[in-house]
Amino acid sequence: MGKHIEKWKVLGSRYLIKRPWLTARCDSVELPCGTRLPEYYVLEYPDWVNVIAVTRDGRFVMVEQYRHALGEVSMELCAGVCESSDADPLESARRELLEETGYGGGTWEEWMTLSPNPGTHTNLVHCYVARGVEQVSTQHLDATEDIAVHLLTAGDVVGLLTQGRMRQAMMAAPLWKYVAVNNLL
Amino acid sequence: MGKHIEKWKVLGSRYLIKRPWLTARCDSVELPCGTRLPEYYVLEYPDWVNVIAVTRDGRFVMVEQYRHALGEVSMELCAGVCESSDADPLESARRELLEETGYGGGTWEEWMTLSPNPGTHTNLVHCYVARGVEQVSTQHLDATEDIAVHLLTAGDVVGLLTQGRMRQAMMAAPLWKYVAVNNLL
Repeated sequence: MGKHIEKWKVLGSRYLIKRPWLTARCDSVELPCGTRLPEYYVLEYPDWVNVIAVTRDGRFVMVEQYRHALGEVSMELCAGVCESSDADPLESARRELLEETGYGGGTWEEWMTLSPNPGTHTNLVHCYVARGVEQVSTQHLDATEDIAVHLLTAGDVVGLLTQGRMRQAMMAAPLWKYVAVNNLL
Repeated sequence: MGKHIEKWKVLGSRYLIKRPWLTARCDSVELPCGTRLPEYYVLEYPDWVNVIAVTRDGRFVMVEQYRHALGEVSMELCAGVCESSDADPLESARRELLEETGYGGGTWEEWMTLSPNPGTHTNLVHCYVARGVEQVSTQHLDATEDIAVHLLTAGDVVGLLTQGRMRQAMMAAPLWKYVAVNNLL
């Protein structure tokens, strides 16, 4: 209580792996109390984006895909990675929505910024709400993407949340905020 | 639309690193469409827990600590790892709350189960709400833990959320659910 929390000092740093989809660093650090941790692992990622996209007639544009680490098919918000060719995270989110679902247009609002895990991940997640989107093209998927688009009602989305079927933390947070702000329960 | 999403086939698997705080696996996989990904990275972790702990007089027991990957001091829920010596995630959460804050007792409810990231992480996060906790001892921190305990009002917590200062996704999700369910906005 009243204790002042300070940053750690980095004594050394080396990369364990640098691949397109995984960059892991091992830092040697010293805590303010003097304790040294010779191996503190940090995962470096580019920023990520996701979007609560709602059509003019109030349907939520969701994507269903297989998630290999958990070994489950899951219903999710459209999401992706900020590419270096994107001007900003908003452009990344618009691009991902168009590529994964074929939906575009609408009025976009910065909804919240999250950290996947500030202890292990260097990146942030930029979450948007897009209102009034419409289908402007077909999906343009990479060979590695196997995605089914679903248009859900607000009631469907609230049902998925209250039944605990929307488990991805970076998506559950903006959706529960959406439920709270719009008083949907 | 109407497309059936299937699991991937694992053609091979090898560990890149197996350390107490980082276990990374590289799987070679085949998608239902036949596309092969020779390098798909999976991070294996034990399950995690966190808790929205509220005292008898309505104060939220929060912890402030430095998070090295993001490089920021952050205000968070009490959280931790399920140890193999814990009977179940509830015991893990009670143990972490006691160790990190000295608070215990109260009535515990399973609040939600999250996935940190189903594409990369094998584990789940078990979130609890504990009502009526009280200080029963002092903190018992590891040498690696530098944690300040804060007792916040519901208004303080809602303020942190609406100002975007509660960015850890696995904590923002249960807190926004708490706000929605208890109509705190």
